[in-house]
Amino acid sequence: MTSIGFIGLGVMGAPMAANLVTAGFDVIGYNRSSGKVRQLVERGGRAAATVAEAVRGVDIVVTMLPDSPDVEAVVLGDGGVLANAAPGTLLIDASTIRPEVSRTIADAARARGLRALDAPVSGGEAGAIEGTLSVMVGGDAADFAAAQPVLNAVGSTVVHVGPAGAGQTVKAANQLIVAGNIELLAEALVFLSAHGVDLESAVEVLGGGLAGSTVIQRKAPGMLNRRFAPGFRVDLHHKDLGIVLDAARAAGVAVPLASHVADLVTSLRAQGGGPLDHSALLLQVERLSGRTNELDEEGEGA
Amino acid sequence: MTSIGFIGLGVMGAPMAANLVTAGFDVIGYNRSSGKVRQLVERGGRAAATVAEAVRGVDIVVTMLPDSPDVEAVVLGDGGVLANAAPGTLLIDASTIRPEVSRTIADAARARGLRALDAPVSGGEAGAIEGTLSVMVGGDAADFAAAQPVLNAVGSTVVHVGPAGAGQTVKAANQLIVAGNIELLAEALVFLSAHGVDLESAVEVLGGGLAGSTVIQRKAPGMLNRRFAPGFRVDLHHKDLGIVLDAARAAGVAVPLASHVADLVTSLRAQGGGPLDHSALLLQVERLSGRTNELDEEGEGA
Amino acid sequence: MTSIGFIGLGVMGAPMAANLVTAGFDVIGYNRSSGKVRQLVERGGRAAATVAEAVRGVDIVVTMLPDSPDVEAVVLGDGGVLANAAPGTLLIDASTIRPEVSRTIADAARARGLRALDAPVSGGEAGAIEGTLSVMVGGDAADFAAAQPVLNAVGSTVVHVGPAGAGQTVKAANQLIVAGNIELLAEALVFLSAHGVDLESAVEVLGGGLAGSTVIQRKAPGMLNRRFAPGFRVDLHHKDLGIVLDAARAAGVAVPLASHVADLVTSLRAQGGGPLDHSALLLQVERLSGRTNELDEEGEGA
Amino acid sequence: MTSIGFIGLGVMGAPMAANLVTAGFDVIGYNRSSGKVRQLVERGGRAAATVAEAVRGVDIVVTMLPDSPDVEAVVLGDGGVLANAAPGTLLIDASTIRPEVSRTIADAARARGLRALDAPVSGGEAGAIEGTLSVMVGGDAADFAAAQPVLNAVGSTVVHVGPAGAGQTVKAANQLIVAGNIELLAEALVFLSAHGVDLESAVEVLGGGLAGSTVIQRKAPGMLNRRFAPGFRVDLHHKDLGIVLDAARAAGVAVPLASHVADLVTSLRAQGGGPLDHSALLLQVERLSGRTNELDEEGEGA
Repeated sequence: MTSIGFIGLGVMGAPMAANLVTAGFDVIGYNRSSGKVRQLVERGGRAAATVAEAVRGVDIVVTMLPDSPDVEAVVLGDGGVLANAAPGTLLIDASTIRPEVSRTIADAARARGLRALDAPVSGGEAGAIEGTLSVMVGGDAADFAAAQPVLNAVGSTVVHVGPAGAGQTVKAANQLIVAGNIELLAEALVFLSAHGVDLESAVEVLGGGLAGSTVIQRKAPGMLNRRFAPGFRVDLHHKDLGIVLDAARAAGVAVPLASHVADLVTSLRAQGGGPLDHSALLLQVERLSGRTNELDEEGEGA
Repeated sequence: MTSIGFIGLGVMGAPMAANLVTAGFDVIGYNRSSGKVRQLVERGGRAAATVAEAVRGVDIVVTMLPDSPDVEAVVLGDGGVLANAAPGTLLIDASTIRPEVSRTIADAARARGLRALDAPVSGGEAGAIEGTLSVMVGGDAADFAAAQPVLNAVGSTVVHVGPAGAGQTVKAANQLIVAGNIELLAEALVFLSAHGVDLESAVEVLGGGLAGSTVIQRKAPGMLNRRFAPGFRVDLHHKDLGIVLDAARAAGVAVPLASHVADLVTSLRAQGGGPLDHSALLLQVERLSGRTNELDEEGEGA
Repeated sequence: MTSIGFIGLGVMGAPMAANLVTAGFDVIGYNRSSGKVRQLVERGGRAAATVAEAVRGVDIVVTMLPDSPDVEAVVLGDGGVLANAAPGTLLIDASTIRPEVSRTIADAARARGLRALDAPVSGGEAGAIEGTLSVMVGGDAADFAAAQPVLNAVGSTVVHVGPAGAGQTVKAANQLIVAGNIELLAEALVFLSAHGVDLESAVEVLGGGLAGSTVIQRKAPGMLNRRFAPGFRVDLHHKDLGIVLDAARAAGVAVPLASHVADLVTSLRAQGGGPLDHSALLLQVERLSGRTNELDEEGEGA
Repeated sequence: MTSIGFIGLGVMGAPMAANLVTAGFDVIGYNRSSGKVRQLVERGGRAAATVAEAVRGVDIVVTMLPDSPDVEAVVLGDGGVLANAAPGTLLIDASTIRPEVSRTIADAARARGLRALDAPVSGGEAGAIEGTLSVMVGGDAADFAAAQPVLNAVGSTVVHVGPAGAGQTVKAANQLIVAGNIELLAEALVFLSAHGVDLESAVEVLGGGLAGSTVIQRKAPGMLNRRFAPGFRVDLHHKDLGIVLDAARAAGVAVPLASHVADLVTSLRAQGGGPLDHSALLLQVERLSGRTNELDEEGEGA
């Protein structure tokens, strides 16, 4: 039975770890707040009190953490993964972080005789619960092959996209498209609302043509009902778009719409929208259009 | 057997008329260039030499024309639909035109005892051939009910979205989203290419997550193969985005990304991209990124 | 003594007409509200009760009106300038309107044996009072020469820029630059304020280097004191930017910043900023930056 | 006689050092390439073979270097300013660098008993030669007072804008406005050219109204003559706009036009425009407008 040390049992990590238990893995979970660990134990996993305990002697380590500094601390720091996992252990980092940090980790892992993949995911909490995430994997082909049983237990689209860091680059592109799609939908909804069109019908027909998207399927219902509880927080999407802009600037690539939507996300956040779901870009478009009176303000973030 | 006068047998109109024949309607077709009419006759339709001949005595008239002036001329002009169709005839205009023109036509039709719906479609040539178009219908509910058998023969998502003109407003929103989605995909592809990521794999995984869209499914393959033959021409999308911007400005609605992508489309057109498929926004992003040397210029428009 | 019929005695027209009186012209003024006419009479002008009365028998007609439809009505309409002024009269339209309307008026004037110039101005109320306006003149060179004494009485920079309509085109370019400069100053001020920099000192030094501009000289003081009473209304600048965007789109010219600032002006207006001075773009940038609490809301429009 | 160690005798530094000689200072110059030092000696200065030699025993050190890493190396590095200048020496850094680097240097200087000001300048090569630069100074008031004789010898507008780093923040705002003004002028020129307006006349009248700016005075002539030899290189403005965007993002401030023009500069650079003068944004607007055939390509960078 393959053993997995799983670090980071948050909104995404918890259901991913649970799916690994269901798939028959021996999962030892660690999380900073212990309540999440207890929930994993109820699902059939085991508890670790420290990162070191979670990774000592396991075959595979999965990390699912908020941002680059968290991953650096947990993987590279004292008492961290590399200091405690045995040579040969395969580290799968599912966090969304800067591509260069993923490359640093891959190098550090190799230097200690371990193997590392960057494997960020897309699909949100729903995809994590259903085990239907998209997983974009960077690293060596042999390591990707070794990770497949684990990745197939959490995702339905699992693709090796290139060497170390490539997973993060594709995830950055993913976040670029997602932010843009949400903003475009928000603009379309405010535009239609201002012209008196029935939004439910419009969303139905928009979803069926060339404008159709997963964003329309998953995000339009909440937007129409003015429910902006996350979901995926504006704060996190802001972080991700920072990765996009830095990588684009470094490569001299023009991403005009991405740049523009990043500004709109920054502005939404500056106005207090950080803790809301990213679909709250609708509120930003409404404010820009002077249509805030139509807002059921009570509904925000509820 | 319900008879339909069908005016405008272009890239979209020809397969739509053919599907109506297949569905058992008696279709009398008219097109400015007669070759298209002969093709309809081969499919089982009948030929009209003039608009008047196509609409005289039929139950339903369908028009599928490029732009607002074309529709005004064919419907309102001398020798046109309203002058020749019998009272009670139902006019279904599937063209993408200005919402106010659709309202003018509805009023003029009513004044002569006819009924009119605006019923623009989305889904492209493929959707027209397969009969899987999205149809967004504006007009009276009773007229929509009467039109359903016809519309269901050309589309798989047929929705009544509001009064006269509402179909056009929703189509405008559709074009806003489609242009934005193509541009976002183009930016993502150039971004990924600049970072050395394998584009085929990336597109596969992007399509499976929250970034997934009909645009990725239908347009990414051609973009990766650098095939930009239309399909849907940049010139037409430029026209449609003009409708979006005018309607947004008139309503005081902020559509920042739509406005930005409209500028990019204008620029692509100014550089000679008008006759290409709208997925040629990829070329625009490449130029902005100084990556034109990578272009297989031979492939353009081929 | 050269006689001038002056139509439109608003914020700009009143001081311009007064300066013409001071320069020794015989000025017969007309305005829709008669209070303005009385003020001109006090300054030494004469009163007209109708447009016809103002223009009958004069050597020169000057019009200074808000928008294209106003000019069309006053010049081309029944009881208007062309119907009542004598052949040979020189019409100088100082209004800011669509270039094509100026061309239409020039053609109509010529058809009746009159001569017409479009001569929109820049410099604001202060420039109108001081007689230091910039005047951009479109029309025939001979007519421009004939108009010089009049134009030099209201402006200090008077330039013939091309044939009929060219004055309006240059004015459109002027409004493009002015709106952009105000927005850039607003962004700079919010940026500096957020970083704790003393704004008075910063404005002084910015004005002295390559960033220096007439906008900084004339608009920064009011922005720092949060005084947004017009001056030049957001509503009017919105109108002017509409002329810019339409003319750019018609010519296939990319004006990305102009397009962007036009969106910001539209949004400011949608949020109720229409009656404020255009320097109120500062409020828009503050809102986008979540810094509205710093606003002395009492100060707005005061 | 006050002695000044001057490090960095490039396009800006050389004339600044020469003006200090003219003003009666004892100037010991150092530059990586010695030709520039010889020119200073010809003007009446003295030569140093190393940074250490230039700063040992002087009263004041002035640094004028391209970017943050250069300043860090020269000031903080081994053999650098802080390691060799005597306690009490006043360091005036005229380079344009990240505000946080200026703060780091101020702290490091204080820790060694030295004093430091950040004093970036605006006004270009012409302003440096004429001694009419705008100087924006961050640091302690007493140090600013001590630096005044030096700063007044190179600039005509010398302003203390706040504590350490504030000079850089104001310079960032300056570069934001300058880039925007150049782009707006470029858009106006292409717009006017497309409409057949005489550009010389238009520039004259634009410069005289509310659109007037130092950018129009200094940059329009070169743009009309299609001379894009620097001047101030696109590469450097790109660097400066990176400082703006990072500082805006860190402060949560919306700078939509700045962000947009930064993208256009990035794109111009990606297309090979990095070595040209920043007024080459005109070429970018022409390309976006499909008007490259009008370009006298020979003229570029000449």
